[in-house]
Amino acid sequence: MAPAGIGARVEGVHAVAAALAAGRVRRLTIERGRNFGSLLKAAAGIPVTEVPDVRSLSETTAPQGVIADCEPIVSHPLKALVARAHRPSLVVLDHVEDPHNLGAIVRSAVAASATGLVVAARRAAPFGAAAFKAAAGALELLPVTMVNSVADAVARLEELSVWTVGLDAGAEESVFGCALFTEPVAVVIGGEGGGLSRLVRERVSKLVHIPMAEGVESLNASVSAALAMYEVRRMRLAAAS
Amino acid sequence: MAPAGIGARVEGVHAVAAALAAGRVRRLTIERGRNFGSLLKAAAGIPVTEVPDVRSLSETTAPQGVIADCEPIVSHPLKALVARAHRPSLVVLDHVEDPHNLGAIVRSAVAASATGLVVAARRAAPFGAAAFKAAAGALELLPVTMVNSVADAVARLEELSVWTVGLDAGAEESVFGCALFTEPVAVVIGGEGGGLSRLVRERVSKLVHIPMAEGVESLNASVSAALAMYEVRRMRLAAAS
Repeated sequence: MAPAGIGARVEGVHAVAAALAAGRVRRLTIERGRNFGSLLKAAAGIPVTEVPDVRSLSETTAPQGVIADCEPIVSHPLKALVARAHRPSLVVLDHVEDPHNLGAIVRSAVAASATGLVVAARRAAPFGAAAFKAAAGALELLPVTMVNSVADAVARLEELSVWTVGLDAGAEESVFGCALFTEPVAVVIGGEGGGLSRLVRERVSKLVHIPMAEGVESLNASVSAALAMYEVRRMRLAAAS
Repeated sequence: MAPAGIGARVEGVHAVAAALAAGRVRRLTIERGRNFGSLLKAAAGIPVTEVPDVRSLSETTAPQGVIADCEPIVSHPLKALVARAHRPSLVVLDHVEDPHNLGAIVRSAVAASATGLVVAARRAAPFGAAAFKAAAGALELLPVTMVNSVADAVARLEELSVWTVGLDAGAEESVFGCALFTEPVAVVIGGEGGGLSRLVRERVSKLVHIPMAEGVESLNASVSAALAMYEVRRMRLAAAS
């Protein structure tokens, strides 16, 4: 059975422009009287409906006058996701539920040159229009694998010669300088509340923490993810120079 | 004239506990029938009002049953903020407007061992209960200076022998490896939309950018801020070892 799709609904100017560029848009709904010149040019051949106010139809509170109904994003087999890059740098999301955090994480992942994203198909709900809007187009650029079990995907990644590094506040080693980051690697990000699930924590190659001064218990999930992904990028650039 | 205060209203369990620990709470309003044992213990001697539902009185949508009316946070003179640390690591906010971003930035600043925060008094509006809640107590831990002009504060910091480093997407130099970070330094963070204001951009000692792969135009403001502040910490630890 194919996993449920994500990305069937995209809202907001940036996100819709990116979905159009990705060739996924089936139907566009725009607000009458607004100027969507460049969007409509990119939408040549796609049915466009004009309505007085798109907000009555939108999932997000600020759709910026434009809604796109789309082909869901293609889910790549995990092996193909790994094979796409000479030295993969993947992001695995375990229990991240907040759509704004999801969107910000994907934006940071693309910016930090990550090569793919692994998410649980059963936890695709947060990947609605709000996440696509927060990602500002980045979700169209990062190849995605939807899996039935994140814990199984972590085990499978190790079989595919990809190290898995989980973020965990209780870990001994720091994320800064983690030697595995210059190898093929997947950074595993836990949820806003409880962090990584038990099985995932047991299966990753290594756990690392983000050093925090006294008084702060945790960082925002999108901040933690960005710090880890940019450390992968920084260490790879440093190793190459 | 003293600048307007911030922090007069704090909501949510973590943020209120931190305000109590800081000795700022004047009056507590709690929801009847909920268990606030440890909070109430910390609130000994402070008037407590019980109400059926605090949400009718709250600024945030999820006050978690507890509201504190507080003495505003003390604003330190800029010179005193600088003098608090042997090697200051300050964060200067220029036009950051979103309370959730503000809260997340302050949380990251404390976690990354920043020693002080500089904000414009006229732009204190976003420092309401939502920012204190997002900061999860961190705003009680980071000494604050409220200034009339961020651009003037940037010039004054240089007089006080503190380098100022502004984040700007158009800058040539990367934030990673910025040599000024091991000196007394202030990282200057621009707004979600337009970045740094013109005058601030002209006055900082140096502008740096966060390297981003093609396809992403910008990062979330709290993500950018965290990457810069943690680079200060990382470089100082690396220089010390």
